[in-house]
Amino acid sequence: MTDIQTAIEFARQNRERFLDELKTFVSMPSVSTSDEHKADVARTAEWVAEQLRSLGMSRVAVMPTGGHPAVYGEWLGAGKKAPTVLIYGHYDVQPVDPLDLWKSDPFEGVLRGEYFFGRGVSDMKGQVLASMKAVESAMSAGKLPVNVKWLIEGEEEVGSKNLGPFIQKHSDLLKADVCLNPDAGMMSADLPTITYGLRGLCYLELRVYGPAKDLHSGLYGGTIHNPAQALTELVAGMHDKNGRITLPGFYDKVRKLTKQERAAFASLPVKDRELLKQTGVKALWGEPAFIPAERVGARPTLEVNGLLSGWTGKGSKTVLPAYAMAKISCRLVPDQTPEDVVRQMKAYLRKNAPKTVRWELDELTHSGWAITDLNSRGVQAMSRALETVWGKKTLFRREGGSIGVVVHLQQYAGVESVLTGFGLPDDDIHSPNERLHLPTWHKGIEALVHFIYNMKV
Amino acid sequence: MTDIQTAIEFARQNRERFLDELKTFVSMPSVSTSDEHKADVARTAEWVAEQLRSLGMSRVAVMPTGGHPAVYGEWLGAGKKAPTVLIYGHYDVQPVDPLDLWKSDPFEGVLRGEYFFGRGVSDMKGQVLASMKAVESAMSAGKLPVNVKWLIEGEEEVGSKNLGPFIQKHSDLLKADVCLNPDAGMMSADLPTITYGLRGLCYLELRVYGPAKDLHSGLYGGTIHNPAQALTELVAGMHDKNGRITLPGFYDKVRKLTKQERAAFASLPVKDRELLKQTGVKALWGEPAFIPAERVGARPTLEVNGLLSGWTGKGSKTVLPAYAMAKISCRLVPDQTPEDVVRQMKAYLRKNAPKTVRWELDELTHSGWAITDLNSRGVQAMSRALETVWGKKTLFRREGGSIGVVVHLQQYAGVESVLTGFGLPDDDIHSPNERLHLPTWHKGIEALVHFIYNMKV
Repeated sequence: MTDIQTAIEFARQNRERFLDELKTFVSMPSVSTSDEHKADVARTAEWVAEQLRSLGMSRVAVMPTGGHPAVYGEWLGAGKKAPTVLIYGHYDVQPVDPLDLWKSDPFEGVLRGEYFFGRGVSDMKGQVLASMKAVESAMSAGKLPVNVKWLIEGEEEVGSKNLGPFIQKHSDLLKADVCLNPDAGMMSADLPTITYGLRGLCYLELRVYGPAKDLHSGLYGGTIHNPAQALTELVAGMHDKNGRITLPGFYDKVRKLTKQERAAFASLPVKDRELLKQTGVKALWGEPAFIPAERVGARPTLEVNGLLSGWTGKGSKTVLPAYAMAKISCRLVPDQTPEDVVRQMKAYLRKNAPKTVRWELDELTHSGWAITDLNSRGVQAMSRALETVWGKKTLFRREGGSIGVVVHLQQYAGVESVLTGFGLPDDDIHSPNERLHLPTWHKGIEALVHFIYNMKV
Repeated sequence: MTDIQTAIEFARQNRERFLDELKTFVSMPSVSTSDEHKADVARTAEWVAEQLRSLGMSRVAVMPTGGHPAVYGEWLGAGKKAPTVLIYGHYDVQPVDPLDLWKSDPFEGVLRGEYFFGRGVSDMKGQVLASMKAVESAMSAGKLPVNVKWLIEGEEEVGSKNLGPFIQKHSDLLKADVCLNPDAGMMSADLPTITYGLRGLCYLELRVYGPAKDLHSGLYGGTIHNPAQALTELVAGMHDKNGRITLPGFYDKVRKLTKQERAAFASLPVKDRELLKQTGVKALWGEPAFIPAERVGARPTLEVNGLLSGWTGKGSKTVLPAYAMAKISCRLVPDQTPEDVVRQMKAYLRKNAPKTVRWELDELTHSGWAITDLNSRGVQAMSRALETVWGKKTLFRREGGSIGVVVHLQQYAGVESVLTGFGLPDDDIHSPNERLHLPTWHKGIEALVHFIYNMKV
């Protein structure tokens, strides 16, 4: 057997153990947005470090950032002439609310049919573990053909805002020929996918203040501008009737799609009926001049992520609230910047907010968009690896999400990322009953083994 | 000394004890909207019944309704020829959120300067106790000159929705010549006030549903109509640019104010600068064609009482929410009906809700408006009582709040209400740090003593 055959065989023999390890990983409630889970997040970082040590990595360290720690480890035994692959992942997960919609404990990890259920199984503890198990499998066959470094962060789900400074500070440590980033998923279980474009993000919190305190709506209603009403007016006005965003200058820097790009989008297997099925809506929505794949991959959006004001419990309370809040985020495309959007939002609010209320705007997090070179060695190695395992052409797409680390690695360490992954569109990441399709996951581990060998000079 | 002088002297000698009893009453967290306080509400009803028994009332009973119980009691010793006064009150209180804005425990009852602080001290445990203490004072002087009945309910703060059927069922028991309702307050500490008009209420909950579950805003943003955005569009559209409500036909039945009524409104001491001071807003708001007193007393409104959607915790969650909710209530004036408003709201939603979302509308509670005859015996007796204690002309006003019982007593038992009370506009009812102005409260007890004697045939 060749090394690669040995490695693949090892991965197949150890599937059950790999799943047990995933169960342990998922059992740690590493919810990064929540103060109450701070100790769980720290404990999870230690667990990741321990895994890297058992893989035989050296210089393993749980390293401080401005927020939750990042885990580093490396194996440079392939020598200076061999390429170095930096493997990125995040060990933090989204909150689980609404908890009552989960069919099993989100932090247990439960097998039902071909799926493994739990918070973070797909996004992205399963992907992190797949990378570790691919390296372990390759190491079982002999010396690794490439050097590897690991950067497993704990703040992706809260916007990776401390990761930029961290990468900047440790840019020498993180130097690599390519970054493998398996956080991007695939279009379906039989469509291996590399993502070459990501949208940026600008996440804002808008607070509108009216009276100094909650008032009785009977005693004051009709004389005081209700800040919840003012907020709905402001938020509603951020789109026009055609779904176009009205922030002044919002589309000025949006790069026009070329004919070639539009043709590529048109060829993607994004079917309206699939979107309807996945989401359960009655009809799709969005800019009529673009198809859904373009609207997600190459057009900017403005979404209301949260609303809060006044009485939200059961029953009625006749209150005229003192305050109303909206969480609003924009997905950004080349060549928009988060700074532009903050400025445009402030200009919009200055122009449209009535004098009867006071507003405050905070930027909670942001990240830039990214585009990767399709002809780079990493992309080519991954494309061949996927085609070997799936026996199909790799799809290349631009994606709607935002991954801060891709931008920061390019900006501060000069490392380009290869974005792939083995999560599926219906994995319900960020939703109740998040799941991982196990047959795809096992194929993914094998694809990563092939990638390691394909990277050999 | 005359009976009345004896009674007034008794009230003055017992001020400290009366306040101790109020402290006990306030210590019971009778929050009617909250399931967790159900036992407290029941315990408070028992306490009220016990107080009526110690006053020497007979037929005292904690009576079941469709919700929280009502307390009844009577003393008919004045004989059939003497008039009967039904004293109405409610022993339930508003929720206390946001709790962190309270300077002392809302259920302790704390004296600071001339004010007594606690949830319900002004709205309306203080008013209920004032009525009891006035009767106790008059009884201390000899036989009461009038018969009294008591109806102290436990659901006013959740819209008294079970009180209509209760009054209908017990209309004989509740028969009286007049109802004393001290839930309406006064315009300031030196302006004794009778309220002769109340607005009605129609309290709705609108829920807008989008995708079957919360989605990742990056993966779906741009293709799915965000229900939080759809909700803001619907709610924002319920007012036009001039603050006029756009529900179809909303103003059709609104009775036009006469010249005489507008002159009366103009003479009320409602000052813009007082409203600004009370509320802390930068500028007033509302229909430009009406002065603030008219906008509160005689014009209908539509208020957003609550908003909820998606992620509302700390930090960011990039969710495209499945659902968005608004609590919306209309204050109604003659001759609007809550049924009209439900129909108008549904027509508005059918016309304006986009096909990309689904909506549901529930009516949570409603009550009719009311107007009382200024020349009735009850109003005249109360007017003279207030003038005796304050040495000033009584003000007559129409009020912005809604008191369901006034409508139900008129409709089912043929009893007209005299609306007064000793709460002040800056008592912060329904808000943190609710308070009662004690000098006004003690004057109020004396005024109720005078009212009892003034009612004598």
